[in-house]
Amino acid sequence: MEDTEKLLTVITSNDKKEFKDFIDEMHPVDVAILLDSLEDEELLRFHDMSEDEQMAEFLEQANESFQTRFLMLLNFEAVIKLFSFMSNDDKADILGNLPIRMRKDLLKMMKQSDTIKLEELLGYDEKSAGGIMTTEYIALRGDLTALEALMKVKQIGPKTEVIETIFVLNEKKELVGTADLRDILTAPEEQNLYDIMDENLISVHPDEDQEEVARLVSKYDLKAIPVVNNKRALLGIVTVDDIIDVIVEEQTEDILHMGGVSSEERVDSTLGTSIRKRLPWLFINLATAFMASFTVGLFEDVIVQVVALAAAMPIVAGMGGNAGTQTLSVVIRSIALGEVELKKNWKLVFKEIALGIVNGAATGIVTGLILYLKYGNPYLGLIIFAAMIGNLVIAGFFGFLIPLLLKVAGIDPALASAIFLTTATDVFGFFLFLGLAKSFLGFLV
Amino acid sequence: MEDTEKLLTVITSNDKKEFKDFIDEMHPVDVAILLDSLEDEELLRFHDMSEDEQMAEFLEQANESFQTRFLMLLNFEAVIKLFSFMSNDDKADILGNLPIRMRKDLLKMMKQSDTIKLEELLGYDEKSAGGIMTTEYIALRGDLTALEALMKVKQIGPKTEVIETIFVLNEKKELVGTADLRDILTAPEEQNLYDIMDENLISVHPDEDQEEVARLVSKYDLKAIPVVNNKRALLGIVTVDDIIDVIVEEQTEDILHMGGVSSEERVDSTLGTSIRKRLPWLFINLATAFMASFTVGLFEDVIVQVVALAAAMPIVAGMGGNAGTQTLSVVIRSIALGEVELKKNWKLVFKEIALGIVNGAATGIVTGLILYLKYGNPYLGLIIFAAMIGNLVIAGFFGFLIPLLLKVAGIDPALASAIFLTTATDVFGFFLFLGLAKSFLGFLV
Repeated sequence: MEDTEKLLTVITSNDKKEFKDFIDEMHPVDVAILLDSLEDEELLRFHDMSEDEQMAEFLEQANESFQTRFLMLLNFEAVIKLFSFMSNDDKADILGNLPIRMRKDLLKMMKQSDTIKLEELLGYDEKSAGGIMTTEYIALRGDLTALEALMKVKQIGPKTEVIETIFVLNEKKELVGTADLRDILTAPEEQNLYDIMDENLISVHPDEDQEEVARLVSKYDLKAIPVVNNKRALLGIVTVDDIIDVIVEEQTEDILHMGGVSSEERVDSTLGTSIRKRLPWLFINLATAFMASFTVGLFEDVIVQVVALAAAMPIVAGMGGNAGTQTLSVVIRSIALGEVELKKNWKLVFKEIALGIVNGAATGIVTGLILYLKYGNPYLGLIIFAAMIGNLVIAGFFGFLIPLLLKVAGIDPALASAIFLTTATDVFGFFLFLGLAKSFLGFLV
Repeated sequence: MEDTEKLLTVITSNDKKEFKDFIDEMHPVDVAILLDSLEDEELLRFHDMSEDEQMAEFLEQANESFQTRFLMLLNFEAVIKLFSFMSNDDKADILGNLPIRMRKDLLKMMKQSDTIKLEELLGYDEKSAGGIMTTEYIALRGDLTALEALMKVKQIGPKTEVIETIFVLNEKKELVGTADLRDILTAPEEQNLYDIMDENLISVHPDEDQEEVARLVSKYDLKAIPVVNNKRALLGIVTVDDIIDVIVEEQTEDILHMGGVSSEERVDSTLGTSIRKRLPWLFINLATAFMASFTVGLFEDVIVQVVALAAAMPIVAGMGGNAGTQTLSVVIRSIALGEVELKKNWKLVFKEIALGIVNGAATGIVTGLILYLKYGNPYLGLIIFAAMIGNLVIAGFFGFLIPLLLKVAGIDPALASAIFLTTATDVFGFFLFLGLAKSFLGFLV
């Protein structure tokens, strides 16, 4: 907080020297966070005082909404100026979030060469390998010697994101391997890259989903993964630090989806946003709640005669929901980690069913005893015992299959699974318990 | 699968040449995965055929349970042999998972110098910065020139995990900055590291929680973060690829905990494991289910007179649970990302309450109308309308505060929040709805 005030005083005092000192002793990421809290006119003053190169860096580090907000304050010349200090993929990411009109106009004002490259980058889905890749990398021909390669690295290095991994191309410009800078440094000067490189290539296509890219990078502990087209031409690379953002983003999505929040919401989102993101989901839940309610309605005659059922039935439904959610979260997580597939692992459903029997019996016997002691009727206890086993089996069965089936159907398991599951456990839970009660009504009244 | 068979035939045929070809064309990570599926005697034959250096690499790439299983098959001499090709931190990680007796014996057999280093590493909590750091890095004195530094990098480079970032120490061996290899490559040969380095240091203490380390690395897009003690002496570094493992691990934990699975379980865990990890949690849920059930029990007299209540009450409780879970997942996620704190953000609870009123009114009016149409009694509709608003406010209130309070109390919000929340929404939901019904009983019968 006090940082913001300090910055404001520095800006208003308009003391260039003090401004520079303040900026220089801060990490660009932190400056970017500070800027996010400034008013428009303060931002403009900040922009006037800072050098374009620095300003460009802060902008790269800032979040998307700030990037858009800030650039829309500037005239096009100023924007182009800042862009001139940015890499093409950063420019593409920023342009991608600008209003189409503004994007088009900006592209018109840029160098023809840049425009072509940028429009190509803008063409990729932002959640695909092409959308997150950077075009700042070192690719060298395999017939270069270690010494020549090192010279190239010195030249190009400062403009690239990764220098530890050098990508090796053959004379047809196809990616044929990667060379570790360590090995280049230690290799005999005249040895050529073909002999130094590792041909064991792991690469992705530009349209590969970012989640799959993240899986590969973390599985093989890669520092960067090359993005190639069908002709094996190198289009760009995805670096491990971008992968971290992908993983965090995907996980956030999963957790919110499992919680029934339809899309990215932060704790400080506006009331309106929160309503839009949560209310539709609540209405879907309401529909399933009514299905459960109608199921209970079918047995009102039984409940009137044995009102204890009304008090006991939430236990059966609730426990089914809990057990099902346990299975669900394990399966959804395994899907996200690429550990489970319906075709390969369907047999595991039997384990979940067995689990339902064991856990259902264990919790059911306790429940049955308590109800027996409370209402003095052993049959009520037996009925709930049976119903619990039945509902936990159903919970295991659906908890395992629903997410895998949704995955096959191309629907995000994290988002839709819980609804189907609770519908199943509620409806079956009430139906099983009250149905049993109805059939053995004689023993209960 | 067919890979495994291929490997088996190669092993049994005992054809060294074929064996080598097979291994060389595979990525070590994939070999490690293959080995996990072999029987003990097959593993031993594999070990006999492979060179120790390769074997050591496969072992480093394998998962912890395999590392332990495999090493326990070998005699100590063979283990020490493999260790001689591993970095200290890999050794420490593996030793940490071995039976204490075996660990002690192995440590005794190693070089005094190694033993000391390893015991120091084994001392750190495995989920702390010290526990995940590597000791293979390049640290140079700041008074070295760019040229001298480059020579050092060539020497030490091959034995380190990161060469892009060089850590700069002063004559007191304190960490004073980091130098980017790019800048060293491009700097004038006689310029010394002090002038090249970036003093803007972000570092952690060895006892820092790995989650916090991950937050810093992803926030500042670091390739590696130095771990220093209070004297600012460099103890090790945590590299970004280890951070990915940390993030994935922590996220898995969060999702499973939110689903009510007490700890790491995979979809293919044994039935016994699954029971142990889920049943205790189900019993806790059972206790809360009984609290809800007893609440209903208090109103059995009302239900007997207006049995429609039995069918309607699950809706109120269920919707409260759903709305609360939405709030919960947003808050838990924000906590994980370090975006929210009780002290700083408690005011946001009012937003959640407002959200409860709006969403409660929206879903409540629909529910009320449907019940009115179904049972022809407008008061039943009004009562459930009021109860829904009330319960969704309660859901927002507790959904927001519970995880933040647990965090303050040092309890994992993801693990315990849901239980408290559903207890609140169930008990209050039933109590509100049935309580209102009781007070306005006259209008209902």
